[in-house]
Amino acid sequence: MSNAPILLTPGPLTTSLRTRQAMLVDWGSWDNDFNQLTASVCEQLLAIIDGSVSHHCVPLQGSGTFAVEAAIGTLVPRNGKVLVLINGAYGQRLAKICKVLGRTYSTFETAEDQPTTAADVDRLLAADPAVTHVALIHCETSTGILNPLAEIAQVIKRHGKRLIIDAMSSFGALPIDAREVPFDALIAASGKCLEGVPGMGFVFAEKTALAAAEGNAHSLAMDLHDQHAYMAKTGQWRFTPPTHVVAALHEALQQYNEEGGLPARHQRYADNCKALLDGMAALGLRSFLPADIQAPIIVTFHAPNDARYQFKDFYERVKAKGFILYPGKLTQVETFRVGCIGVVGPEGMQAAVNAVAEVLREMEVLDI
Amino acid sequence: MSNAPILLTPGPLTTSLRTRQAMLVDWGSWDNDFNQLTASVCEQLLAIIDGSVSHHCVPLQGSGTFAVEAAIGTLVPRNGKVLVLINGAYGQRLAKICKVLGRTYSTFETAEDQPTTAADVDRLLAADPAVTHVALIHCETSTGILNPLAEIAQVIKRHGKRLIIDAMSSFGALPIDAREVPFDALIAASGKCLEGVPGMGFVFAEKTALAAAEGNAHSLAMDLHDQHAYMAKTGQWRFTPPTHVVAALHEALQQYNEEGGLPARHQRYADNCKALLDGMAALGLRSFLPADIQAPIIVTFHAPNDARYQFKDFYERVKAKGFILYPGKLTQVETFRVGCIGVVGPEGMQAAVNAVAEVLREMEVLDI
Repeated sequence: MSNAPILLTPGPLTTSLRTRQAMLVDWGSWDNDFNQLTASVCEQLLAIIDGSVSHHCVPLQGSGTFAVEAAIGTLVPRNGKVLVLINGAYGQRLAKICKVLGRTYSTFETAEDQPTTAADVDRLLAADPAVTHVALIHCETSTGILNPLAEIAQVIKRHGKRLIIDAMSSFGALPIDAREVPFDALIAASGKCLEGVPGMGFVFAEKTALAAAEGNAHSLAMDLHDQHAYMAKTGQWRFTPPTHVVAALHEALQQYNEEGGLPARHQRYADNCKALLDGMAALGLRSFLPADIQAPIIVTFHAPNDARYQFKDFYERVKAKGFILYPGKLTQVETFRVGCIGVVGPEGMQAAVNAVAEVLREMEVLDI
Repeated sequence: MSNAPILLTPGPLTTSLRTRQAMLVDWGSWDNDFNQLTASVCEQLLAIIDGSVSHHCVPLQGSGTFAVEAAIGTLVPRNGKVLVLINGAYGQRLAKICKVLGRTYSTFETAEDQPTTAADVDRLLAADPAVTHVALIHCETSTGILNPLAEIAQVIKRHGKRLIIDAMSSFGALPIDAREVPFDALIAASGKCLEGVPGMGFVFAEKTALAAAEGNAHSLAMDLHDQHAYMAKTGQWRFTPPTHVVAALHEALQQYNEEGGLPARHQRYADNCKALLDGMAALGLRSFLPADIQAPIIVTFHAPNDARYQFKDFYERVKAKGFILYPGKLTQVETFRVGCIGVVGPEGMQAAVNAVAEVLREMEVLDI
């Protein structure tokens, strides 16, 4: 186990041994001890966004995408219309969810290296009064691009519309204050910047919006109104919770707070990102995004030009040296990705850069 | 950790330390090592029902209920009609899923101590040719009652209809042979008789039925056709898998096979059930079901008559002695439940009975 590779992937990621050891206990899902664990997790999550006055935290079984679908299905009325802002694969997925759920929607797509702007949203909302909700990816994991959430949220509020934020890969590392950024739903998951293990998502749902959402959902399992109402009444999850995943998240949140909460987590990831960018630049590897729109979560690099470079070979060789990278997700250019998140520091990122350098030498990749 | 209580609950249940220790490793969800783990899990699951020729195993994130909803949503066409057979809370839940998903359905309900019979189903199908699918709970966890699956399945086949089986609490312990019992879907989960941890379900979907199910689903996340197609193509889960839960299930399946597979698991649970029933009978506690319809999974007991008996107090005192029981789920009579499943043997069940005896003495419960 000690020689398991470091995951430089955007979740699942490398967790601490302490977090994993929290899974060595079996919990009764009906038992009060476990209910207290769930309540503590929700309370700690709400504290990260200063959201306890305005929002409920509704945890949900499954991956982050389950929670995203649940938020749209529960909070967008069946006669609502969603404007989906897209600059990558996860924005495309939001649109696909609206389509499958039968919610009316329109899309606005920019290039994968082009953030959506507040001015774009202002213009789009002025042009289409039928829109009731706007859905946005905060940090698009396809590239690592950061969209200007705070500015966009203010424009949406001014138009009297509602905002649904997929903050899967930013929550916990990039500041979002529910007292200043108005939103109906913000969605994230256990296995991302909080450094828990994957298996549950959660939705911060604005209290009045959630109260008004009864009967909207297209699904029993993904009905967040029902999930919240049952939990508020009983302290329990409606259906069997992933008990060990919840216990791991609880332990990961303790460590998050011990580390210094969001500012400390953000700083470590920013240091990781800088070590990675500097180290890779020294090898001649170019990052896809300019620095000002690069979130310190995951970095996309252009693949070397050299014909001797093949991603699969590169991946396996870097893995053999102890680091798991991530494939690119762009259709137009060949890339690969390296995550900056998880239980790793700048020295670990430098070690990963050294491994990449050795592998490129081994592969005789010269034209980078 | 060593003094954590034994869970005598129908999942989550007590797992082995070896199974929990399998969660001490972080896996990359894109990595080939993890893909092999998933493939091995699916292969071992299919072997339990001898289903590899006729069925695909489609794993799904979330609790068992997510997998049940996914099976109905994916496999019942939007213009289909489901006959739901009910004798407890999980049957009721099947009907609720059909209602929320907008699938036409009818229900047939018997008393909670009354199995549905093949003759019932024969009569119902003859009377309503519009029915396309029948949905049945194999072992109803509300009481522990066993429904005669094999006989019912033959009747459904004779009528040319399709069967969806919720085998959540029976799969792995009670024999079901896919070569003899015709069904379109059989659903179970990681944290039940296989003795894994909760966090994923799986559906055995009949191959031609699944192939014909494209576009049926009401949900992106719960579309089993899409989930299977992606996994068949890439070896990966469509959305982030609960990696640690999958690893634990893999380890639990190894132990299942080492123990002697289904016959051994069934025998141990039957021995557990007998030790429990005999021990409780000696205390004067009456089981709710007659022995011939009692599955060796979970037993419902009538609560003592004595006014000094209060479930909450009883529960906490038994827990303090090392055993977590389960509340009753019947509306008409006051009951409590005791599971026979998990990493526990007949001597553990006897120890639980002894704890119950001590607690009843402490509480001065005389009128049982």
